[in-house]
Amino acid sequence: MAEKTVRVGLVGFGTIGCGVAKLMSEEADSIAAKTGLRLELAHVVDIDTESPRPVTPAGLVVTNDINRLLNDDSVTIGVELVGGTDTAKEIQLQMLRAGKDVVTANKALVAEHGSELYAAAHQNGRCIAFEASCAGGIPIVSAIRTGLAANSITAIYGIVNGTCNYILSNMTSKNEDFAEALAQAQEKGYAEADPTLDINGTDSAHKLAILASIAFGCDISLGDIYVEGIEAVTKDDIRYATEMGYSLKLLAIGQRNAQNKVSLRVHPSFIAKDSALARVEGPFNAISIFGSAVGQVMFYGRGAGMMPTASAVVADIIDVALGNSATTFRHLQLKPRNETASMIEKIDDCSSRFYIRVMAADKPGVVARYGQILGDHEISISGALQHEGTGPQNSVPVVITTHPTQERNMVAALSELETLDVIAGKPICIRIVDIPEDKEA
Amino acid sequence: MAEKTVRVGLVGFGTIGCGVAKLMSEEADSIAAKTGLRLELAHVVDIDTESPRPVTPAGLVVTNDINRLLNDDSVTIGVELVGGTDTAKEIQLQMLRAGKDVVTANKALVAEHGSELYAAAHQNGRCIAFEASCAGGIPIVSAIRTGLAANSITAIYGIVNGTCNYILSNMTSKNEDFAEALAQAQEKGYAEADPTLDINGTDSAHKLAILASIAFGCDISLGDIYVEGIEAVTKDDIRYATEMGYSLKLLAIGQRNAQNKVSLRVHPSFIAKDSALARVEGPFNAISIFGSAVGQVMFYGRGAGMMPTASAVVADIIDVALGNSATTFRHLQLKPRNETASMIEKIDDCSSRFYIRVMAADKPGVVARYGQILGDHEISISGALQHEGTGPQNSVPVVITTHPTQERNMVAALSELETLDVIAGKPICIRIVDIPEDKEA
Repeated sequence: MAEKTVRVGLVGFGTIGCGVAKLMSEEADSIAAKTGLRLELAHVVDIDTESPRPVTPAGLVVTNDINRLLNDDSVTIGVELVGGTDTAKEIQLQMLRAGKDVVTANKALVAEHGSELYAAAHQNGRCIAFEASCAGGIPIVSAIRTGLAANSITAIYGIVNGTCNYILSNMTSKNEDFAEALAQAQEKGYAEADPTLDINGTDSAHKLAILASIAFGCDISLGDIYVEGIEAVTKDDIRYATEMGYSLKLLAIGQRNAQNKVSLRVHPSFIAKDSALARVEGPFNAISIFGSAVGQVMFYGRGAGMMPTASAVVADIIDVALGNSATTFRHLQLKPRNETASMIEKIDDCSSRFYIRVMAADKPGVVARYGQILGDHEISISGALQHEGTGPQNSVPVVITTHPTQERNMVAALSELETLDVIAGKPICIRIVDIPEDKEA
Repeated sequence: MAEKTVRVGLVGFGTIGCGVAKLMSEEADSIAAKTGLRLELAHVVDIDTESPRPVTPAGLVVTNDINRLLNDDSVTIGVELVGGTDTAKEIQLQMLRAGKDVVTANKALVAEHGSELYAAAHQNGRCIAFEASCAGGIPIVSAIRTGLAANSITAIYGIVNGTCNYILSNMTSKNEDFAEALAQAQEKGYAEADPTLDINGTDSAHKLAILASIAFGCDISLGDIYVEGIEAVTKDDIRYATEMGYSLKLLAIGQRNAQNKVSLRVHPSFIAKDSALARVEGPFNAISIFGSAVGQVMFYGRGAGMMPTASAVVADIIDVALGNSATTFRHLQLKPRNETASMIEKIDDCSSRFYIRVMAADKPGVVARYGQILGDHEISISGALQHEGTGPQNSVPVVITTHPTQERNMVAALSELETLDVIAGKPICIRIVDIPEDKEA
């Protein structure tokens, strides 16, 4: 079969850009054999044309003039790997207006300005492919949009930030403090010098916004997502909860409840330690999806890194070049904001189980008052753990787990608990997430 | 956006057929919203038009006249869910000749006659979609063909038969005999009345033939695959190996070796018990794929059952109706048999580690003779386990694990071991598979 040449322009020649160039060059023949497409990297654009790169395929010239790409009508696909939301957005819009389909790994941009970009693409008769924006090499976007297209998605539970999972895994297995584990992650290259957006949950929220948008078919904005990072997690709480049968993960959760409202949250979550997601360790990502017909399916792999992310970018280039992305993208019609807003469950209304730890004075009657306050707010205790021995100021850690209760009850109970003079400091509160396990009948 | 009506004809109205009808009916609006397609079940054909079915959507008429489907030009997609290879093949060929694209869940047919059917489809300008033939609701076929298209696949390790996994899980966790566990599986509906094709590995081999064909791009026949079932597995061997750190799974393995030959095997496999696949329990399926760029990705879910399989069938109907399947199918060009044959590694040449158990007479010098025979065949011992106490005829089980050696060495050593008068019965030999774990750097 005759090969079709596909000329690609790439903007942003950092780590991922180098991976894409490397992969397009190394797998060129194999891709041609499998797809009939001969991928050619026609232009590489970056403001930095000088610095040495980890990989530069032979003959590749880096230019800082994006117009060479935009004005080249033989280039049909533009890859945006600049990152950030301002310049990157302008670049994508320029590409679309210049008649190029867009492939991107930019989760922040897709999460924050997706609907605007999709509209621009529809207007220009082009498409945007963004598999690489979520969970690196795991083909999760295409799984939701095509492989599971016959299902109504009822829930998504994702470990979508490798940095946080690496830190929490090490806090658990090596009994490290958060600060120690973070330093380790930075040393190993799993956390950036400024890890803020990873550890505060923003990066996971970006990915959840994208995945939930396509899974639930509505235009989700970052503001719809309740976000809590892992900065305040202590190794003690991980240890106590481990004794009670839980593992700690930063989960990105999208759940459709019985009233058809969607709960969207990113927060540290204790999950049953024998659940599939609990076993995802180190820098790996995994996403469990529940579909009306398929039950639970889980996708696991490297959620970041040069070559895994490049794998997704080049898969998108192929899909766009074959015309399949255009077909799928044409039907990406998200419910607009004015319909979406009322579909989102407020965090106060969200029902969940909780892990609570207080440092209680080692005096008679403390536990009774603790229990009393919870009872007053209709919170029912499911389990408890109190080790003998003393903490700071002769306090002892008292851990309880609760049955499901609305978040607002817990908030009220916590603020009352804080005022108790027999409790030192602020109570620690971490949500327990019971992932339905789709166990054998 | 205007909806496009897609009229579908279905042949074979058993469990999966009912699931497809149910799903097409229940999710019709949701599918229309997501894809712009209004799926209509125009004809349902089965030789049995009378028996009550688990689900029959309102207004559905079952006919035994396939010509009503074939002669209806408004029907563009034919779904074959008859099963078996003779009638089903004829039905698919009739559908293709009648100008219909084909969707099928028939793994035996695709595995055994895939290339003939693909040729007929290409000839008629039609496509065949077979996502449902492998691993039920897990979108693994599309993951290999599109999501991982930028990768050269180096290996596939799959738990693709839920019956066997259920049996082995119960033999492990409940210390059941094979016969007990099989009876349990039959009672729970995870094994058929005649479970032969599941437990002897044929079903897994069918799925491996399909997955390996598309992953390695060659026309693989069943005869290329070395197949060993789980019938001879004992709970004792599972227990001994568990003590040594292994779990037993029936794995379907496709591996490209350094000489670019492909090893294709289905056999009971001891794998490290902390590996991702070891944790797949009960009737679930999981497939780990290693790609040149993506590293390890794993896909997990229900590999069988009415609704999970229907999920894959209807996803394929959508993909075909959107035209995407045709694009992907057009490039499904497998290396023909005359090129493929030389690419397949013979089982004798295959290198692997082994678990061996013999029942040795409790006499001096037995272990030395045992070790001597292995050494004579260049087999190096990696671990050993001998519990005190006696077995039948005062024999004791002596377990050893080996370093990698070629299969032919092991076959020769085993036949020599069998002749030893101090060893009772045949030695037990189970392969140990070291799945590369793609651990953190």
